[in-house]
Amino acid sequence: MAEEKKYRVEVCFSPDEFDLYKQEYSVVVAIDVLRATTAICTAFEHGAEKIIPVSSVEEALEYKRMGFMAGAERGGKIVDGFDFGNSPFSFMGDAVKGKTLVLTTTNGTRAINMAAKTHKVIVGALVNLDAVIEYLIEQPDDVLLLASGWQGKFNLEDSICAGAITEALLASGKYLSDEDSTIAAMFLFQKARDNYFGFLKASSHRRRLRNLNLNEDIKYCLTPNQTRVIPVYEDGALVKMNVWV
Amino acid sequence: MAEEKKYRVEVCFSPDEFDLYKQEYSVVVAIDVLRATTAICTAFEHGAEKIIPVSSVEEALEYKRMGFMAGAERGGKIVDGFDFGNSPFSFMGDAVKGKTLVLTTTNGTRAINMAAKTHKVIVGALVNLDAVIEYLIEQPDDVLLLASGWQGKFNLEDSICAGAITEALLASGKYLSDEDSTIAAMFLFQKARDNYFGFLKASSHRRRLRNLNLNEDIKYCLTPNQTRVIPVYEDGALVKMNVWV
Repeated sequence: MAEEKKYRVEVCFSPDEFDLYKQEYSVVVAIDVLRATTAICTAFEHGAEKIIPVSSVEEALEYKRMGFMAGAERGGKIVDGFDFGNSPFSFMGDAVKGKTLVLTTTNGTRAINMAAKTHKVIVGALVNLDAVIEYLIEQPDDVLLLASGWQGKFNLEDSICAGAITEALLASGKYLSDEDSTIAAMFLFQKARDNYFGFLKASSHRRRLRNLNLNEDIKYCLTPNQTRVIPVYEDGALVKMNVWV
Repeated sequence: MAEEKKYRVEVCFSPDEFDLYKQEYSVVVAIDVLRATTAICTAFEHGAEKIIPVSSVEEALEYKRMGFMAGAERGGKIVDGFDFGNSPFSFMGDAVKGKTLVLTTTNGTRAINMAAKTHKVIVGALVNLDAVIEYLIEQPDDVLLLASGWQGKFNLEDSICAGAITEALLASGKYLSDEDSTIAAMFLFQKARDNYFGFLKASSHRRRLRNLNLNEDIKYCLTPNQTRVIPVYEDGALVKMNVWV
């Protein structure tokens, strides 16, 4: 009996390191748990039609002038002149239903745009964890899990999310990985799995957000499986993938 | 009673990310457990006088032509034309006693040279773990632990060594850190501490070396506290620090 082909999965801890990893993979899962990819999943769960991720505040401002609903976040705060940043609570309800949104954030939209130049990009977070895992188990390509980090640096929450995905992919028997970053992410997830909130209590990013009174955001972002949507990048914008209806 | 000033410690997982971290720290511990920094510690333990770390094979070759004892490693193998690479067993005994050596390796010498341009650099490994920890507890500056990684990528063994140092520094009460990379390194060390060899069995670098029949090297490199020497970079070369006699 021929051995079934196994797909590869690896974790890249920062967009700054993407060039070292990108050659070997064709699908990228962009992860920015606190808060961009969580907010993006939330928007589609609430009926948004399209999200255009842009890398600069200037671009977002241009879209805003053209009449788009545009958000901008830098350093955890809403940029002056914008009505919202990347709080998932800004991406709920009738405000977003049927809309095309524009978003720029410190880390997440940068990772998405960087990877989208050369790769198929889907958007992952804890809020759509199982949906992403189930999709990856069925699809036929090697997968790079791209943590957005914090201004290029390693961060815990994205690494843990990547570790959660990795563990499930390896457990499925369809994937293999012996890369060090993947092993590390998985160990961090196993340490954190029973209490994300407690585990991340010491993390620098959570502290930054807590200082901004964003504890409710953090709780939401760290609660897995609140939606089944998988945003995917197509023709310059994120849309809801049509895998499941 | 005035609170005692605490020093900061942070972990940088790859020389490729050094620019993001370097501003905040004045002392760098360069770590390349498999095998460059282990070999360098070993050479000083065996009486070497000086080690000139060079970044390119060409430079090492020039030194060799000038009569220096020069080693070069790329991808785990001795480079053609050189008598030794970075196996610690090449840095023992009378061969190195009193000598000035020249060394270039895939990852470790690159990290040392990069950091030495702007920072005080000391050399850390598992073989001199406690000596490095005790020195850092006594010295008066913020410390960056710089993992050499593997061709720019995250690696497990250097991260674990950095985690071991971090845990001890934080336990000393003289240091603090709430950076995500530091927390992650410490967790990985806590997971690995009882059995480095078993923990790293899956690691990519160990696999590479095992394939090159370097199991004895790996065992040596993963055995903590075989020496008290701390190599330090001074005037273009590494020398043995004169802290303890």
